[in-house]
This record gives sequence, structure tokens and C-alpha cells, in this order.
Amino acid sequence: MRIGRLNHVGVAVPSIEAAKDTYRTLYGVPESDITHTWEMPAQGVRVAFVNVANSQIELIEPLGENSPLIKFLEKNPAGGQHHVCFEVADIHAAAADMKAQGAIVLGEPRLGAHGTLVIFIHPKNSNGVLIELMQTPHEGAH
Amino acid sequence: MRIGRLNHVGVAVPSIEAAKDTYRTLYGVPESDITHTWEMPAQGVRVAFVNVANSQIELIEPLGENSPLIKFLEKNPAGGQHHVCFEVADIHAAAADMKAQGAIVLGEPRLGAHGTLVIFIHPKNSNGVLIELMQTPHEGAH
Repeated sequence: MRIGRLNHVGVAVPSIEAAKDTYRTLYGVPESDITHTWEMPAQGVRVAFVNVANSQIELIEPLGENSPLIKFLEKNPAGGQHHVCFEVADIHAAAADMKAQGAIVLGEPRLGAHGTLVIFIHPKNSNGVLIELMQTPHEGAH
Repeated sequence: MRIGRLNHVGVAVPSIEAAKDTYRTLYGVPESDITHTWEMPAQGVRVAFVNVANSQIELIEPLGENSPLIKFLEKNPAGGQHHVCFEVADIHAAAADMKAQGAIVLGEPRLGAHGTLVIFIHPKNSNGVLIELMQTPHEGAH
């Protein structure tokens, strides 16, 4: 297993709309590089992406009372960096490899925001950084 | 002003050598994609990069008693995501634009780890995320 592209940096925010405005206004990202916002109830998040030349910022906002982001935002009310996502060729192989090495895989592979399977690796395994591994989307996929 | 490439994600760690080992062993990054470690006394950090296909992870470790990372690691002893760095075409224009928009620019443009000038924008201006803006290095530069 070897990580591929840095697909995105996940940023938890109290308001996706306010965060979009920051990237649009302060950092000059054109509207055409900011996606619409949609809901992922199974993950407890609302989500939108800000595209930059080689990668993306994923804006995530709590959805519902059991959102895993609620605790994060209690500690970081203004928002903050939440995870880093790398692409992998085969998510099941990656999950097996992580487990074989003794890393803590949080949950089973599930559909992520790009429509491919993802897993999360506990921050304690990666110097305090929550790592998402995402099977590389097919060319032209969302 | 418009941000360009996501140059790197800065990760503060208590030990760069241990963090390199995580990326090498758990995430399969080959030794040839991990730089040597060097010191930047003016910034109070030791630094090394882990290259992935389209971007980099910047590993930073405190150097000296006045390192700005000491407080960060007190709050996050295992380490954690510290900043996100985007490239800009002209750092002085970017700094002027940030200030004109009322954002808090932390210090004057100074040499960053890639040998070009960088500035930092206060997290309160960007949804809790410390943003580094870095003048795009010349082709083939470190």
C-alpha cells in the first residue's frame, strides 16, 4: 500500500456558507471552483468543496444531533483543520494493510463525498492527524 | 489575488524522525520521496517534507526555547495539523490585498522552507485555519 494524491484537506466549520465566502472573497477562488452544498446524513455532515489548482478544501458542517463534528466544534468554535485525505488504489487492500500493521481503522469502508469508499485512520497512528483514505475516483467522476 | 496550488499541509510533530517513519512504514511513502531534515532557526523549527503525487506534507518540530510550536504541542502533545499553504504569484501583492481586506497578516514576508517569501494569515480570518501564502517557487527549485 502506498498513498497517492492528497485529495483534500477537511476543514470543519460552523457555517459552510460563511466559509465559502472566505475563500471567494479573501482568497479569490471563483464561484465556478466552489461546489454546491449537499447533505450526507449517514456521516452526519453537510459538505462542499473548494477547488484549487491541484487539490481541494472540503468544508464540512455538522448535520443532526449525532454529528461527529459537534464535539470538534465545541473544542474549536471557529472551525479548524479536521483531516487530510489521501487517495489509494484499493480501499479494501488499504484497510487490510492498516489493520495488519496494527493501526486503528475507524469503521468499515463507506461511501465518501466523492462517491468512492473511504476509511479513516485514528489520529494516534499518524502524529495526531486524522487521515482519510479514499479509493481513487474514476476519471471524470464528481 | 487568487490562491494557486495547495503547496503543502503543515503538520507539527514532537519528532520528525518518528513522523517520517509513520509515512514510510504505515503509508508506504518511499525513502526517495522524504527529504532530509534541516533547521530554520529564524522560524524556530526543524523541517522535512513528505512528497505525495500532487502535494507535500511539511513536518515541523520545535527548534529552540522560543519556537512557536511549543505552545501548539502543549495543547496537542501527539502533534496535529498546523497550517495549510497555498501558492500565490506575488507575495507582496498578496500581503497588501490581505491587509486591504482587513485580514491579520502575521509578520512581514519572510523566507519559507522552499526558499521563497511567505506570510501567514491569522486563523480567525479563515474559519480557524492558519493559512500560509507562499510565493510560487521557480520551476526546479527545492
